[in-house]
Amino acid sequence: MPKRTDVSAVDTVACVGAGVIGGGWVAHFLAKGFRVLAYDPAPDAAGRLARIVDAAWPALTALGLAEGASRDNLTVTATLAEAVGPAGFVQESAPEKLDLKQELLAEIDAATPSDVVIASSTSGYAMSEMQVAAAAPERLVVGHPFNPPYLIPLVEVVGGRLTEPWAVEEAAAFYRHVGKSVITMADELPGFIANRLQEALWREALHMVANGEATVEQIDTAITEGPGLRWPVHGPCLTFHLAGGEGGMAHMLDHFGPSLKSPWTRLDAPELTAELRDRMVEGCEDEAGGRSIAGLVAERDRAIIAVQRAVEGARDA
Amino acid sequence: MPKRTDVSAVDTVACVGAGVIGGGWVAHFLAKGFRVLAYDPAPDAAGRLARIVDAAWPALTALGLAEGASRDNLTVTATLAEAVGPAGFVQESAPEKLDLKQELLAEIDAATPSDVVIASSTSGYAMSEMQVAAAAPERLVVGHPFNPPYLIPLVEVVGGRLTEPWAVEEAAAFYRHVGKSVITMADELPGFIANRLQEALWREALHMVANGEATVEQIDTAITEGPGLRWPVHGPCLTFHLAGGEGGMAHMLDHFGPSLKSPWTRLDAPELTAELRDRMVEGCEDEAGGRSIAGLVAERDRAIIAVQRAVEGARDA
Repeated sequence: MPKRTDVSAVDTVACVGAGVIGGGWVAHFLAKGFRVLAYDPAPDAAGRLARIVDAAWPALTALGLAEGASRDNLTVTATLAEAVGPAGFVQESAPEKLDLKQELLAEIDAATPSDVVIASSTSGYAMSEMQVAAAAPERLVVGHPFNPPYLIPLVEVVGGRLTEPWAVEEAAAFYRHVGKSVITMADELPGFIANRLQEALWREALHMVANGEATVEQIDTAITEGPGLRWPVHGPCLTFHLAGGEGGMAHMLDHFGPSLKSPWTRLDAPELTAELRDRMVEGCEDEAGGRSIAGLVAERDRAIIAVQRAVEGARDA
Repeated sequence: MPKRTDVSAVDTVACVGAGVIGGGWVAHFLAKGFRVLAYDPAPDAAGRLARIVDAAWPALTALGLAEGASRDNLTVTATLAEAVGPAGFVQESAPEKLDLKQELLAEIDAATPSDVVIASSTSGYAMSEMQVAAAAPERLVVGHPFNPPYLIPLVEVVGGRLTEPWAVEEAAAFYRHVGKSVITMADELPGFIANRLQEALWREALHMVANGEATVEQIDTAITEGPGLRWPVHGPCLTFHLAGGEGGMAHMLDHFGPSLKSPWTRLDAPELTAELRDRMVEGCEDEAGGRSIAGLVAERDRAIIAVQRAVEGARDA
């Protein structure tokens, strides 16, 4: 096992791939005060990267830049080795093609110091599938961000079969150090967690559009004017905990449980066993952490009003 | 066809059912300055209603009450007829049981003046299923709100096979008059639009918890720290329009289209035909209404920052 890195001592990050996600990571690390070495084989990579960083900079400036943060700390390198060789952390954000990811991660691995963690932004491949060609697969992890990576806190971290636990822990520690909210997953679940949730919703939306049941605009309005206003404050479980009134999730499942048999989506529901019911109820109680339903309702109400005002203020006129 | 009501002349609303949703509607109509007549057969209905309205009132006061709005404008009646007889609009929010809804809507219909629209808050039944026992089914519509009805703007409006178009139009006009965002649906889609989207996500979440793939808290965190921060400003379609970078939805579908075959959710995706692709692309372009990707990115970024700050400020310490 290599010597563990002090994540707070990392001052240089390599970003491989300069698309929407890779460019977003570049903007994030620059705003956090890092020196960023970026590599992308596309001929217009530097220009595209500059446009992404320039577009993100007003938001990042409004959020507050770290001491010493500057767009001048970005270097677009001519070769992969020049980017990853001096890096204390590597973030790969290449296109979602498995053979490309396999080859690229092997190349990155070969050119990166052995004690440095290499994370992939993949939105769906398992690291077990991607790490097969690397000589040192034990330091390869998934670090899956959300667009835009410079604003959305969530990063899902999970290793593959050949990944050592220290690499997963170090990736999680580094992301937290740079201001991210980390979910460390014990197992490789296809699509991870957030994408599975979002993808279920997205596929239902595509079915509706394909069948002429709703328009693109109706779908977007249904979310932005509806449940989308609740989700920044309480996730789907805690939201339904409140839908149960004073009885919480237990009442909600007992009352609406039968609707899991209704054709409200093309996705079949699991059997609502006593065990699943109890797991949902206990999970909500754990998450509420002693806060009463009335307290959560008041919190939700304040948040919905504040979110609506925030969005109104941020919209283009 | 009855004489069309001037929705702005309605000053009295009847709310039948005093659970979380019915009570939320009562709070909404009180805050908008209406006289509200509420009926619920439960023995503790008045007390429960008072608690719901009291809990909502600070948020509604912060939002701004209409002229003359007061909690004193609520009367809990002893009979159904006393509630609906004097009403200019009726909102039914009884428990989700089909036979109960069928009987109750027939009773409401019998006691309500013939030119008054009767709307059901049902979260999933089709009005065609519910209106079968009513003598005047032509003025029965679905007006499906989201919890809490006094804050979330969305109301989905749809009629049944026996509903006349004037009733659908009048319900939509009345809801808009009281500050709601209305989606009028042409056809009865089980679960309507927002619930289908939300239900797909919810069922995927239940599967994950049932299989030990994620905890309740991980699911909620995945949304509140992830895609949930984008959805108040841009719905799922416009969000993915931006995930495509400068190429928008067209690039996104061409690049991520193959992932619709991936097991990222238990919900099978539709075939991504050229027709569906074009419908998604054109829908996003219509919705963007000439706004550039760069303009939408800037709007999204401002909104995400503002939403995060809003939620932080609203959270319990």
